[in-house]
Amino acid sequence: MVKIEMPLILLNLKTYSESTGARAINLAKICEQVQQETGICIAVAPQFTDLYAVAQATDIPVFAQHIDPITPGSHTGHILLDAVKEAGAVGTLLNHSEHQIKLASIGNLVERAKQANLFTCVCADTPEVSAAVAAIGPNAVAIEPPDLIGSGIPVSQSRPEVVTVTVSRIREVNSQVIPLCGAGITSGDDIAAALKLGTQGVLLASGVVKAKNPLDVLMDLAKGAQS
Amino acid sequence: MVKIEMPLILLNLKTYSESTGARAINLAKICEQVQQETGICIAVAPQFTDLYAVAQATDIPVFAQHIDPITPGSHTGHILLDAVKEAGAVGTLLNHSEHQIKLASIGNLVERAKQANLFTCVCADTPEVSAAVAAIGPNAVAIEPPDLIGSGIPVSQSRPEVVTVTVSRIREVNSQVIPLCGAGITSGDDIAAALKLGTQGVLLASGVVKAKNPLDVLMDLAKGAQS
Amino acid sequence: MVKIEMPLILLNLKTYSESTGARAINLAKICEQVQQETGICIAVAPQFTDLYAVAQATDIPVFAQHIDPITPGSHTGHILLDAVKEAGAVGTLLNHSEHQIKLASIGNLVERAKQANLFTCVCADTPEVSAAVAAIGPNAVAIEPPDLIGSGIPVSQSRPEVVTVTVSRIREVNSQVIPLCGAGITSGDDIAAALKLGTQGVLLASGVVKAKNPLDVLMDLAKGAQS
Amino acid sequence: MVKIEMPLILLNLKTYSESTGARAINLAKICEQVQQETGICIAVAPQFTDLYAVAQATDIPVFAQHIDPITPGSHTGHILLDAVKEAGAVGTLLNHSEHQIKLASIGNLVERAKQANLFTCVCADTPEVSAAVAAIGPNAVAIEPPDLIGSGIPVSQSRPEVVTVTVSRIREVNSQVIPLCGAGITSGDDIAAALKLGTQGVLLASGVVKAKNPLDVLMDLAKGAQS
Repeated sequence: MVKIEMPLILLNLKTYSESTGARAINLAKICEQVQQETGICIAVAPQFTDLYAVAQATDIPVFAQHIDPITPGSHTGHILLDAVKEAGAVGTLLNHSEHQIKLASIGNLVERAKQANLFTCVCADTPEVSAAVAAIGPNAVAIEPPDLIGSGIPVSQSRPEVVTVTVSRIREVNSQVIPLCGAGITSGDDIAAALKLGTQGVLLASGVVKAKNPLDVLMDLAKGAQS
Repeated sequence: MVKIEMPLILLNLKTYSESTGARAINLAKICEQVQQETGICIAVAPQFTDLYAVAQATDIPVFAQHIDPITPGSHTGHILLDAVKEAGAVGTLLNHSEHQIKLASIGNLVERAKQANLFTCVCADTPEVSAAVAAIGPNAVAIEPPDLIGSGIPVSQSRPEVVTVTVSRIREVNSQVIPLCGAGITSGDDIAAALKLGTQGVLLASGVVKAKNPLDVLMDLAKGAQS
Repeated sequence: MVKIEMPLILLNLKTYSESTGARAINLAKICEQVQQETGICIAVAPQFTDLYAVAQATDIPVFAQHIDPITPGSHTGHILLDAVKEAGAVGTLLNHSEHQIKLASIGNLVERAKQANLFTCVCADTPEVSAAVAAIGPNAVAIEPPDLIGSGIPVSQSRPEVVTVTVSRIREVNSQVIPLCGAGITSGDDIAAALKLGTQGVLLASGVVKAKNPLDVLMDLAKGAQS
Repeated sequence: MVKIEMPLILLNLKTYSESTGARAINLAKICEQVQQETGICIAVAPQFTDLYAVAQATDIPVFAQHIDPITPGSHTGHILLDAVKEAGAVGTLLNHSEHQIKLASIGNLVERAKQANLFTCVCADTPEVSAAVAAIGPNAVAIEPPDLIGSGIPVSQSRPEVVTVTVSRIREVNSQVIPLCGAGITSGDDIAAALKLGTQGVLLASGVVKAKNPLDVLMDLAKGAQS
């Protein structure tokens, strides 16, 4: 059974050309190599069409990028919790800023994911929204100020107060929820800063996927997480 | 200045034929009459196209049914906070089960409504989601189990435990948020039960709008709220 | 009964601060003045919250900016065809690039608007999509290349071939549908060019609403339409 | 290279439990067997998470159930044309009644699919909407009256006039578009009737997926298509 451990580096492959199909598998294998060499848990969230092949090819935790609030039935073109699980996912992102969902759907999906033993990482854009998510009780909340996503400006270093306020707001509401942060994370220093502020890991994407040498970047990130 | 006072009866006119145009104004005038006779605050949420005329015709609090997460600009066909306020609204429903919005939009709109001195009543479907909304800090949260909406089965009498758990979950997270409840409320007894369970008012629609004699129903409701 | 006549200048007030509430009424009165002085039909599409007051204050054609695909019932926060009509609208925009709707909804709403004697102007972004809309049979199709909307670069002068191809595609599919064009229209020359290319009017917004002197701009536009 | 040939039986696996994961592969293999035995082309549209494994396991045409109107980039949780193609899809459903999209998106996606050599089957609910789709120029249009989907009442036998009017409306607008029909199709007689009315194939789902013996049903369907 694949384990999700803290500190966590969660790599969102989004829908970049650099992370579609065979390139998703390559990136996942690099993640696996870095996990093996450093002991830091590195999870990967490929596109739905790549979930199965990535889960087959590696032993790292594989996440879905999203799940739709549906149960088995007539829902052509939608994403079923049971399907991502059967394809090999052990967790899922929910409410990413690029695929936001209704509040009641977050409530419903977190509940159903819990029953299915699927790890949930729900994204939020502000400390208030992070606290709201914490009240619903997912495994993790990832705070990501939307204007920093893909910016290369790390939230953990440029807006440390957003991260610390978020961590304390989440703890007040539900101390069992794991705080993560994202947006602009590209280096080991960014992760180290994020962990010092009270988070237990990071969510990142372009910093690795679009890097000239993803292995080097991931190795640097993992070392930052070790410290 | 129109005041919103507790206990509150908040009448959602939805998009029924019985509450469109001139009939919205008639219903609002009946609400005003009952408020004057009983001292119980009765607010009304007409369709956007009726907001202005209803606000002109009565002195009761007028609510919008929804606001879109936009600021002034190029947003053809959307609902602007400033526009509903200028039309005469003193409050707004948000995230009604028939018009749910993204979590981040609730955060953004509650913040902007606060700055604009617009009362926010955010709807929720479960105690967990109600607690989540409370973390965002609107003026009020209205719990409405979707399966009871329009059913005539009052949540306050058929599922008292949902209401009490919601009230206590809201208080834990943010004691300043006013708990309301809705779904199936049609009589003074239903309101009295809701108030005993710790709410400060009710949200209702068809029970009044589709009644043969809305005045009688509203009078009964207001008397239930007095007790 | 308010008449909609060709050539038509259709002014979309969008959700600008400059066209909200009392300022919507002022702009509509300017439109009325220009219509009276020039004989050119000028219709105005205010926000839903301003529809009633604008229709009361003027005798020009008033349009809704959008209608939702609902019938009377439990649809909190949505826009009902019957409600915009009762508020005074004689027409509606549908599928504006800022509020696009599903194809089946266009089919359904055009059909219902026809029964309700409500003029429909459906927006489209390409000649192919314009032809598709024509097959559904609204009163008018307005082609608006999205990148030119609000640009001040008039489609009728910068991309005349888009307009002529659209006009001929629409005619092939359904010769009864009125072709309009929009995007970047700000002067009488722009309208004159649009009419020469085979359209029967224009759809515009910021060029008038955000002008220092809307009366002057509208007068220039109307004169361009006269020629 | 996998070929898509008429008459076509296009099996939509939707998100049924009976067609998720390993069961999707089983159903696809049954389709392949029937195609080999009868010579009738049978395409299958599995969930995104099953696309790759189904395409690997069989030589029949594999379709996506939907594609989002995005290009490669930051679109977490969305469906990329390039990704479904790389996973093995040779075609896609678009605008299924359970996942309708905006009109402009249909225009954009059909254009891009054409460039990518991906077969497009766009769904429509009425003859008017079918004609509109034809103007956009996909490979095929599938008319499916929504109330008959999953009903077991075959559109081709219960509403033959809807099918014939649709076929002629499509031909008027664009004679190169292949007309298909769906909703309620469960037997060879239903297909035979559909072909006699001028269609070149059918779209179906529950009639096969939820059958006790999908092989028998598919064999009957294929024989109906042979006649």
